[in-house]
Amino acid sequence: MSILLAADFSQAEWVAWWPALQSALPGETLVREVANPLSIEIALVANPPQRLLAGLPRLRFIQSLWAGVDGLLGDASLPRDIPLARMVDPMLSQAIAETALWATLSLHRDTFEYAAQQRRGEWRQRPQHRADEVTVAVLGLGEMGRATALRLAGNGYRVLGWSTRPVQLGGVVTRAGTAALAPVLAEAEIAINLLPLTDATRGLFGKPTFAQMRNGASLVNLGRGAHVIEADLLAALESGRLRHAVLDVFAVEPLAAGHAFWTHPRISVLPHIGALTDPRSAAQVVARNVQALRNGTPLAHLVDRTRGY
Amino acid sequence: MSILLAADFSQAEWVAWWPALQSALPGETLVREVANPLSIEIALVANPPQRLLAGLPRLRFIQSLWAGVDGLLGDASLPRDIPLARMVDPMLSQAIAETALWATLSLHRDTFEYAAQQRRGEWRQRPQHRADEVTVAVLGLGEMGRATALRLAGNGYRVLGWSTRPVQLGGVVTRAGTAALAPVLAEAEIAINLLPLTDATRGLFGKPTFAQMRNGASLVNLGRGAHVIEADLLAALESGRLRHAVLDVFAVEPLAAGHAFWTHPRISVLPHIGALTDPRSAAQVVARNVQALRNGTPLAHLVDRTRGY
Repeated sequence: MSILLAADFSQAEWVAWWPALQSALPGETLVREVANPLSIEIALVANPPQRLLAGLPRLRFIQSLWAGVDGLLGDASLPRDIPLARMVDPMLSQAIAETALWATLSLHRDTFEYAAQQRRGEWRQRPQHRADEVTVAVLGLGEMGRATALRLAGNGYRVLGWSTRPVQLGGVVTRAGTAALAPVLAEAEIAINLLPLTDATRGLFGKPTFAQMRNGASLVNLGRGAHVIEADLLAALESGRLRHAVLDVFAVEPLAAGHAFWTHPRISVLPHIGALTDPRSAAQVVARNVQALRNGTPLAHLVDRTRGY
Repeated sequence: MSILLAADFSQAEWVAWWPALQSALPGETLVREVANPLSIEIALVANPPQRLLAGLPRLRFIQSLWAGVDGLLGDASLPRDIPLARMVDPMLSQAIAETALWATLSLHRDTFEYAAQQRRGEWRQRPQHRADEVTVAVLGLGEMGRATALRLAGNGYRVLGWSTRPVQLGGVVTRAGTAALAPVLAEAEIAINLLPLTDATRGLFGKPTFAQMRNGASLVNLGRGAHVIEADLLAALESGRLRHAVLDVFAVEPLAAGHAFWTHPRISVLPHIGALTDPRSAAQVVARNVQALRNGTPLAHLVDRTRGY
């Protein structure tokens, strides 16, 4: 029985992942082509072809190599009864926390404006505020949201964490449930989206939510592109309701040539680099779940199909 | 007897400083003009006019409102026997640490390159490294250097602190003395200058020092413009020896219109905002020293004229 690696990797990614997985899975047979569908017991997947997994009758376990599984769950043929695990890697959470901290510092300390001033040759100091005078809302308190909230609080920011269900987080004020979202948004200068993409969160960042945000607040989207209604975001920036948007994810990726986001002076575009999975640490996470399957012990980070993450 | 505030403040700065100082110094007479030179006992200064302080015969104490006193010491008429204190405000150190952290995150996570890619409409992910794989040298371990080194270490970076004289700093590797500088520079991807400007450090960042730095390293100058030899910096960026420079200070400020730094694609220009003194907390620091003078107790943060800081 074999372990299939089904991924739409670039050549550089194959070069990094393949030896990392081989060395983390000694004694296992790792394949990257389905020569015999009956031989595949485990699938490690990163954007696998649609319907591929449905054609593996002896599949016992699917491990995503990415944190987000909304793409996988969008494949209607995905076998519903086979355990599916998300990638939860502490290294990944730290990388997201770094990206969120960079965006927060950039917004707090006006560095996007200073970069624009440099392009104009303009020397002008802007008012400076202490970090504890800046309120940052972290929306979504999964592994990445929790790491981000703690990192920002550790750097002196006033952090409000929000999630669907209550989460306790040492030193960070947290609120839960739909009714608590508007008051959190009303307080925050910066809102960081780290929610999973589900039917409940799709399109959350549209006109009604922007209307709840503090005037002149900024949005940092590290979740999914489909969380944001693009036309509403452009309108909110245009009207001045929003000051700036840092976007790492987009409805269609790569972001299309000629898209309005590329040239908007108050949008910072990142090419989905909030946290690139590090094959070295992720392969260890994969190996622990493969070992758990072999030993019959509980698999970690299984996706709840009814919640969607 | 009065306290003179001699500063080249903008109107906005006067509006912030004057009430902050008045409220921190109850019972003192604060003036902003020298009506009677014999009435001035204490001078609070921020770029005071040359020779002003030499004309105050009853002056007992000079408190700088800025951290750097190289400008003051450059006034040959400055009374040599009157105690002079630098501004050392924990809020200021945290602001500098934030600026250094923003620059470090930006260099570590390639955000200057991503901003350039956005201007070209280019979607391309760059390799990502863990913070503990990035070595940052913090040069100068005064109040600001120590706060910066601790902040960077707290965010996962490998920090090497360097100073003229030995400094102990919990959790951070420190080295001291001229001979230790070259090996520190050879290890660091990012060098952050927080040295005081003295005869020994003027022009330190020139061709010989750049030759000691790791190939492709970056420079963050939060010290003084005169620490850097501008032509050598441009040559080091041109040759590829240096990757990027983040500059907050310049030989002449404001940076002149048409200066090559404004338009260099691998130089980020900040208008000396590394740490803007916050009148609210700085006024408390001033008040503590004024009280110490009144009580005959030791004054804090006195400048050693032989060291120059």
